[in-house]
Amino acid sequence: MGDHGGAGGSRRRRTGSRPSSLGSGGPAAVAEEVRDSVASPDVGAGGDARALARDKNGDARVGSGPLELRCHRLQDSLFSSNSGFSNYRGILNWCVVMLILSNARLFLENLIKYGILVDPIQVVSLFLKDPYSWPAPCLVIVANVFVVAAFQVEKRLAVGTLTEQAGLLLHVANLVTILCFPASVALLVKSITPASVGKKASGDSTQGTISYPDNLTYRDLYYFIFAPTLCYELNFPRSPRIRKRFLLRRLLEMLFFTQLQVALIQQWMVPTIQNSMKPFKDMDYSRIIERLLKLAVPNHLIWLIFFYWLFHSCMNAVAELMQFGDREFYRDWWNSESVGYFWQNWNIPVHKWCLRHFYKPLLQRGNSKWVARTGVFLASAFFHEYVLSIPLRMFRLWAFTAMMAQVPLAWIVGPFFQGNYGNAAVWLTLIIGQPMAVLMYVHDYYVLNYEPS
Amino acid sequence: MGDHGGAGGSRRRRTGSRPSSLGSGGPAAVAEEVRDSVASPDVGAGGDARALARDKNGDARVGSGPLELRCHRLQDSLFSSNSGFSNYRGILNWCVVMLILSNARLFLENLIKYGILVDPIQVVSLFLKDPYSWPAPCLVIVANVFVVAAFQVEKRLAVGTLTEQAGLLLHVANLVTILCFPASVALLVKSITPASVGKKASGDSTQGTISYPDNLTYRDLYYFIFAPTLCYELNFPRSPRIRKRFLLRRLLEMLFFTQLQVALIQQWMVPTIQNSMKPFKDMDYSRIIERLLKLAVPNHLIWLIFFYWLFHSCMNAVAELMQFGDREFYRDWWNSESVGYFWQNWNIPVHKWCLRHFYKPLLQRGNSKWVARTGVFLASAFFHEYVLSIPLRMFRLWAFTAMMAQVPLAWIVGPFFQGNYGNAAVWLTLIIGQPMAVLMYVHDYYVLNYEPS
Repeated sequence: MGDHGGAGGSRRRRTGSRPSSLGSGGPAAVAEEVRDSVASPDVGAGGDARALARDKNGDARVGSGPLELRCHRLQDSLFSSNSGFSNYRGILNWCVVMLILSNARLFLENLIKYGILVDPIQVVSLFLKDPYSWPAPCLVIVANVFVVAAFQVEKRLAVGTLTEQAGLLLHVANLVTILCFPASVALLVKSITPASVGKKASGDSTQGTISYPDNLTYRDLYYFIFAPTLCYELNFPRSPRIRKRFLLRRLLEMLFFTQLQVALIQQWMVPTIQNSMKPFKDMDYSRIIERLLKLAVPNHLIWLIFFYWLFHSCMNAVAELMQFGDREFYRDWWNSESVGYFWQNWNIPVHKWCLRHFYKPLLQRGNSKWVARTGVFLASAFFHEYVLSIPLRMFRLWAFTAMMAQVPLAWIVGPFFQGNYGNAAVWLTLIIGQPMAVLMYVHDYYVLNYEPS
Repeated sequence: MGDHGGAGGSRRRRTGSRPSSLGSGGPAAVAEEVRDSVASPDVGAGGDARALARDKNGDARVGSGPLELRCHRLQDSLFSSNSGFSNYRGILNWCVVMLILSNARLFLENLIKYGILVDPIQVVSLFLKDPYSWPAPCLVIVANVFVVAAFQVEKRLAVGTLTEQAGLLLHVANLVTILCFPASVALLVKSITPASVGKKASGDSTQGTISYPDNLTYRDLYYFIFAPTLCYELNFPRSPRIRKRFLLRRLLEMLFFTQLQVALIQQWMVPTIQNSMKPFKDMDYSRIIERLLKLAVPNHLIWLIFFYWLFHSCMNAVAELMQFGDREFYRDWWNSESVGYFWQNWNIPVHKWCLRHFYKPLLQRGNSKWVARTGVFLASAFFHEYVLSIPLRMFRLWAFTAMMAQVPLAWIVGPFFQGNYGNAAVWLTLIIGQPMAVLMYVHDYYVLNYEPS
């Protein structure tokens, strides 16, 4: 703009022919004025960032006539590539507004169609139906047997009353038995940890910290069992104090998001899934896809809430209570530009465990990185399937397949989609992949249990 | 990170106890390695921008034991405000993916429900039904009478055979008559322009350019009539040549977007509007809102396409054909953070005309800016209503009210919503306001013409 500043008084607005009130208009009038006074050198002085391509009009200014009547300049439209314009940040707000409005409509449509289906009592009554049968808590209590067994083996190994080989045998027997008690898979994973870590850690020691075998106490054992991590360490980093306000906020979040998840499942997921059964039976593909996309939105929202609820609210609440210092339960997976980045960052406790007790040992035994990575996904796929098959009492391999599909998916997304496109591809697989698996299991469960045949 | 670099060899990974293949892993392994080797000074050296808050763990490093077993550090979760983390750019991609998926589902649902309703012949057949009745083209041809009348008056004024007062009287009579011919409103607006500009422009003149009264030729008159602007100028800026590829692209866009608009209206708007009539009759408010939100999406998309079609494709095509240089038919209204900015930038030809022939003259007569602005909106509201009422043959004031509501709306949005919130508010009024007006007119038209009462 500066190079037009000296274009001379003849280019300026002829304020003499107008009431001076216009020329000396307040700041509110500046934007209006600037629009019209194209030939005036004060273009762009309105203080706003609307710096359009106004400096292309050098040739258009050759001319005569009173300048207030000149209101055209030689210039390109903004959408033309010649204009060099690229400020479309408003479009992002447009996306957000459209998204909120679309979902507001879906919410309203759902309410009109089904009324209010949310019923918190329903969940509680499921547990109260048979007040003397509490299978899950029983399993959790029984699981402690294995924890203590592993602990005792380790203790005898430390004193030397057991040989290394006998200890290994007992650990393996313990771990295999534990696989039969589904509620304790997390404990299984945790059991592997101290057994292998405790000994390796028998190195140097300094003041104020615990070293092997002083760590083999029930206090240390149960601190690890309840701590929000799967990797054992002799001296966990500890936070200095329990922040009561922080803890209260996390506890309130836990309560609120639990209710919200139940409400969304009852109000939004259940009717959508029920409506999907008929297209599935008829094998009506276009309707199946329509149902899948309809299910994707609530499923994804619930998964996002679940993520925040578990990895931020619950884990932070437990960590705050136990003064557990390492709060890195997740990293910025929402920015992942590759499938691998997502899996390495969305669930840090499991990722750390897989890395330390699976990926690295595999590498140390001379396997290639590719084999080690596939091995990790294989183990993960097995546990995903295990966690789903046992409660549903059917073995369908959908979860296994979904997890194993991540390996070829990473090959496809990696080289072909980068930056924001890679990020969008990761989101797409998350949004579409999950409801696909959900529909598969629900369909098979329905066929297996409710089909009249 | 640099301040931890000198933490000493004891912090480094004990590569001696491992196969060297791990220590010298390729670049692909770096990301994996970095994750775990928290105490290693090469954290963050993976070359990626995942610079999380890793430098808070100074105190966590005081400790003993082999460092490969340390995998926890004192740190906050990313969502905790203490973490200082604020990189959520992935969320924007999430919005885009969700928006595309939601609308893909709506599209599919629509197809399943209604089949293919698109029928380009239907539009053509409307015109062919009565092949000897072409009211619109007739009006356009007749409108030329007024143009020529205005031109002749102006010519006589220039030579001096008419007094200024007689000329003014004839111009006013001409303009009032033209109001009765709806198809020629654009010509009305254009007729005002040369009449008032031509004389004012009678000032200095330079070589190569035309000055008053040399401009009073039929050639000049019809160049202005067809040019994509409403503001007359003695010497319009001209583009040096007709770019054939540019013209072809614009013409193809014109064809394609015309078809697309017709298709979207037939497939998406018409069924949605038809489904809205029952809730309107029953005065079922929740369903009316649901229908309104359902209609908002196709209506808004069609408006966006219409905007591009008219202001970019059509106007640029005409301008290219006529070598009309000023292609600023719109500015970046999509970034508007206030209602005023939107109205000043989305329709530049009308905005320029309003500014030059309405807003500024009002200011010059000593009116306040507030009065002038309201006056412009009043005129705009009148023409909006006029353009809708005449073809529909009913006078309902919905369009008038919608335009006049912009004045109080600007008061509300201005001070309370700024930046991105202001932009979102502008989008919201655009997305919601238009279908509201559409539904009102359709409902009233339906009641007036098809109601059995």
